[in-house]
Amino acid sequence: MLFPKRFQVIVVGGGHAGTEAALAAARMGVSTLLLTHNFETLGQMSCNPSIGGIGKGHLVKEIDALGGAMAQAADEAGIHFRILNRSKGPAVRATRAQADRILYKAAIRRRLENQPNLLLFQGACDDLMVNGDRVTGVVTQMGIRFEADAVVLTAGTFLDGRIHVGLDSHAGGRAGDPPAAMLSARLKELKLPQGRLKTGTPPRIDGRTIDWSRLVEQPGDGVGPEAIGPVPVFSFLGRAGDHPRQISCWITETNERTHEIIRSGFDRSPMFTGRIDGVGPRYCPSIEDKVNRFADKTSHQIFLEPEGLSTHEVYPNGISTSLPFDVQLAAVHSIAGLENAHVLRPGYAIEYDYFDPRGLRASFETRAIEGLFFAGQINGTTGYEEAAAQGLFAGINAARKVRGCDAWVPRRDEAYLGVLVDDLVSKGVSEPYRMFTSRAEHRLQLREDNADARLTAIGRELGLVDDRRWEQFIRKADAVSRETARALTTRVRLAEADSSQTHTIAELIRRPEFDFDRAVAAGVPLTGQSPVSRETLRGEFGVELADAVIEQVETSLTYAGYIEKQAEEIARAARAEDTLLPESLDYGAVRALSFEVRQILSRTRPRTLGQAARLSGITPAALSLLRVHLKKLARARGAAADAEADAPESTA
Amino acid sequence: MLFPKRFQVIVVGGGHAGTEAALAAARMGVSTLLLTHNFETLGQMSCNPSIGGIGKGHLVKEIDALGGAMAQAADEAGIHFRILNRSKGPAVRATRAQADRILYKAAIRRRLENQPNLLLFQGACDDLMVNGDRVTGVVTQMGIRFEADAVVLTAGTFLDGRIHVGLDSHAGGRAGDPPAAMLSARLKELKLPQGRLKTGTPPRIDGRTIDWSRLVEQPGDGVGPEAIGPVPVFSFLGRAGDHPRQISCWITETNERTHEIIRSGFDRSPMFTGRIDGVGPRYCPSIEDKVNRFADKTSHQIFLEPEGLSTHEVYPNGISTSLPFDVQLAAVHSIAGLENAHVLRPGYAIEYDYFDPRGLRASFETRAIEGLFFAGQINGTTGYEEAAAQGLFAGINAARKVRGCDAWVPRRDEAYLGVLVDDLVSKGVSEPYRMFTSRAEHRLQLREDNADARLTAIGRELGLVDDRRWEQFIRKADAVSRETARALTTRVRLAEADSSQTHTIAELIRRPEFDFDRAVAAGVPLTGQSPVSRETLRGEFGVELADAVIEQVETSLTYAGYIEKQAEEIARAARAEDTLLPESLDYGAVRALSFEVRQILSRTRPRTLGQAARLSGITPAALSLLRVHLKKLARARGAAADAEADAPESTA
Repeated sequence: MLFPKRFQVIVVGGGHAGTEAALAAARMGVSTLLLTHNFETLGQMSCNPSIGGIGKGHLVKEIDALGGAMAQAADEAGIHFRILNRSKGPAVRATRAQADRILYKAAIRRRLENQPNLLLFQGACDDLMVNGDRVTGVVTQMGIRFEADAVVLTAGTFLDGRIHVGLDSHAGGRAGDPPAAMLSARLKELKLPQGRLKTGTPPRIDGRTIDWSRLVEQPGDGVGPEAIGPVPVFSFLGRAGDHPRQISCWITETNERTHEIIRSGFDRSPMFTGRIDGVGPRYCPSIEDKVNRFADKTSHQIFLEPEGLSTHEVYPNGISTSLPFDVQLAAVHSIAGLENAHVLRPGYAIEYDYFDPRGLRASFETRAIEGLFFAGQINGTTGYEEAAAQGLFAGINAARKVRGCDAWVPRRDEAYLGVLVDDLVSKGVSEPYRMFTSRAEHRLQLREDNADARLTAIGRELGLVDDRRWEQFIRKADAVSRETARALTTRVRLAEADSSQTHTIAELIRRPEFDFDRAVAAGVPLTGQSPVSRETLRGEFGVELADAVIEQVETSLTYAGYIEKQAEEIARAARAEDTLLPESLDYGAVRALSFEVRQILSRTRPRTLGQAARLSGITPAALSLLRVHLKKLARARGAAADAEADAPESTA
Repeated sequence: MLFPKRFQVIVVGGGHAGTEAALAAARMGVSTLLLTHNFETLGQMSCNPSIGGIGKGHLVKEIDALGGAMAQAADEAGIHFRILNRSKGPAVRATRAQADRILYKAAIRRRLENQPNLLLFQGACDDLMVNGDRVTGVVTQMGIRFEADAVVLTAGTFLDGRIHVGLDSHAGGRAGDPPAAMLSARLKELKLPQGRLKTGTPPRIDGRTIDWSRLVEQPGDGVGPEAIGPVPVFSFLGRAGDHPRQISCWITETNERTHEIIRSGFDRSPMFTGRIDGVGPRYCPSIEDKVNRFADKTSHQIFLEPEGLSTHEVYPNGISTSLPFDVQLAAVHSIAGLENAHVLRPGYAIEYDYFDPRGLRASFETRAIEGLFFAGQINGTTGYEEAAAQGLFAGINAARKVRGCDAWVPRRDEAYLGVLVDDLVSKGVSEPYRMFTSRAEHRLQLREDNADARLTAIGRELGLVDDRRWEQFIRKADAVSRETARALTTRVRLAEADSSQTHTIAELIRRPEFDFDRAVAAGVPLTGQSPVSRETLRGEFGVELADAVIEQVETSLTYAGYIEKQAEEIARAARAEDTLLPESLDYGAVRALSFEVRQILSRTRPRTLGQAARLSGITPAALSLLRVHLKKLARARGAAADAEADAPESTA
């Protein structure tokens, strides 16, 4: 039957990509349906119970700056927060949270259920409706047809999912969930460029059977007697007071005996015996991969991460595996503190279909089927954050598409989201793609702390940012400029130097031995000058906002030189980024271009000259030829427009 | 691989039967494993979000009296409580709670995770290990073999589950969950007596799209300005203060237009077109069944039950259906208040394998395979409470079996659990069996209020009742006898009568115009006499316990006559119940028994004479013949024992 209500956007899938996609489209005022095979798994964290980390935390802050859900859900569910690389430069500083799985799911589901313009429906998606080369809707397992102008597919690991433990394997979308076999078969009929990837997860441990006394405790930031500063928050709207109770993680490690056991299972490993064709994530390898590749290492660290406040289940981060279960058990039992550990769920690998993201436009709309968008693991990525960022992005562009607006594509110097999208559509993937700060050439610009400054105004324009977030953003921006101005103009004398020389607070902050607090504390104000302390600002703005403002003031003053230099580079690059390559460009007509280059460009159809430059096989010479060709085209168009302007006006 | 730890009892399934079975066995000190295909669905309420009701509430109180989890979880998760039949006799008075699904699951999971002697493992059960006619363990989908002395199978609707909506159908254990197809196939190979049943669930509604102003509000007991008394509790250890926030249900109804729409779908109904072979629950019929069977009724009531505090999802109790989805939608939209309702999940019917419970011993051990126990829907029942009670029962007897103890089988006059078990193993089922008070011939004895008095001491002996519950039970029992004695001896004069006649409080309570409170209030105490008010008792015991004590005093005084008379009947019946029929009895050797009766008895092998009496086809005459035969056997055994006693002692 045809569902009587027609939607503008349908999002298929209720994971991290699907929920952000649905929320984004609905926030933009477009009537949206989220279709998922099971409400109970909306917002489920299928693998590790954590959000963020280096590169990934950056994405989460950007999602938040654009009004997305992930950061706020992590704040609601977070039971352990850390700022990684705190002592390093601000570009690589990143937030990471352990989340209570049940609270996280509840936080996501509450947002989905309360989002205006968004309806939910439980049903497995078995098919797409396609008319010519245009998607017109989806069909559920029960035969219900939903019509829409655009469909965002976020199928995660479900497409023809196959679970492997040792040499045993069975069909499944995730342990305990059925795969999407029918949909996979249908997508194959559409002949989209496709391949297989794999990912994995470790065995889970019953905390009641862990000998905690043999482990090293790792408290979260802002917790315990040695804590400095408050517990971190993820969202720009977050307050540490809204976090649930904070608990510790624990550290142990593998040893030579563990590695021996693991090696003893190589002959029954689905990876090493060729049972798994799909390529796994190189930067999140299984323990057998690590033991194999780094044969000289005698130990690998394991973080024992609690899965929530109401469960004893523990996630041993670092020993993802698809070895036979007897090997898993023996390996776990060889690890300090886990000698008598009960394994609650086996580790496993899962193979699934993905689609070559070079088959996507820069908007994540598939080139082959108009109105069909892909986001998340289906595009060959790994990670909740990468999925959520893509979901948000695809949701935005699906909404813009149905409204007849151009795609919104952030630049590589604007956002990690820009880097992610550009990397995927330009270079494709050869393994599950995850974000790193090293992927961003403008990373001093793309910091966690300024994600709001980079994106919230854009988000407001796109219709993603509500009044509350907007007002808070304005308030922060005003405070940052006021306090930066104050730091630049407030003059103090350094007491201990007993000198007559005076300095601005800004000058002090720039010195390596000072920061904002030390500068304010060390300086003796001149008459009429009043430096303002963190305490005072916290009184005015609250802890979280005041600290964020001070961080902005410090960073912008300290790194002003570098940032300016990077901004110049960006401006140069931006010219290439702003140079659009028409969708219909006939690369065969570009003079002197080599056959290989023509092939690459015709297949990939880059959106801009900048994107073309990053394709492998594209030389600077080829770019020059392209530039010349574009100028010629523009001149031709100009002539045509002039000719049109000369034509007689139509009578009114 | 063989899992290195051997268990005494393995419970397969994490629903209401499985969780009570696992908790019971583990409470009794037996090493237990709970195997489930997905931890995330532990304790899931697959159908309506409520616990209890007439007959069912009785079971819940009995489960609680035996230390089970269901009542306490309902107290932790209950968002709306009512005492049904409050104005009727105490036998049919029953508690019913609406539960927040998420809180209920959390309450069950917390109990499972914290139960000593119980380990959990996530994995689908694909096979049983059987050696000869003895079960030796289970095998998971991943090929992990777990050994045990006894296995309790609680597969619910998962065995070869098939979901129907209109003429569409697909394999599934529950919407969104895969079926247990492999296990079903394996069980079929074991040639256990088997059949198909079906059950159904209604479409779910998005509360944001309901016009509440058109509905009748139904607040829970103890809530709102007209509330009398506190909010009810389920557990004998419950306190109303521990409930979450209480909210209302709402009432609407179908109309003639709704019925027309439903009838228009009959030709595409899987029930009426013969697509479903399984028999559905007659007392919990689908709306199409009701419209079909009661063609003259123009309206059926619908209770709109909230599914939780953190969701807008609403369960429309009364319109379970497997009609095509277009008919479901149109029917919903024809109902007052639901004109614009968005349906979140379609209603559906599910067909599944069950096994004829006459193939079970009275302990729920299968006759065919030693050590294999069945509990819950697999035995042909419907309902969470029926499942939980059976799980508890099978868990107890599996634990007793592995310890070499005789089965514990409560009598029909001891517990609804006794009625349930006896009905199932004696009569089998022709449709999904649900509990009613009418099934109990001793129902004045089997009240909710005295479930603890009936069962907690037995539970203590069985090893099911912990110190906290036991102390509370003793405290209550002491208070009941103290206050009953006080009521029987405290003499008062009735002030308004201004008479010199005196009465005991007990005499007043027995009068229809009085109850405990009125009796205490109306009486002017004689010198030296001190009737004690509810207020005073609440001060001493707390509200819940004091109220429970007073209820006991009232009931035992008011119904003393009836209860005594029933007790005599029970004593007579008990003689039959205590007369065991040997497992090996050769019914062919019973003189003068008809061929049919011999067949029935040989097939069913009743455990006692009482159970034999309730089999259809067994006449009083047949029973007399049996009794004579048993006496003859006993005499023969006596002679043999005498002969043995005469034999010379073995030398030490």
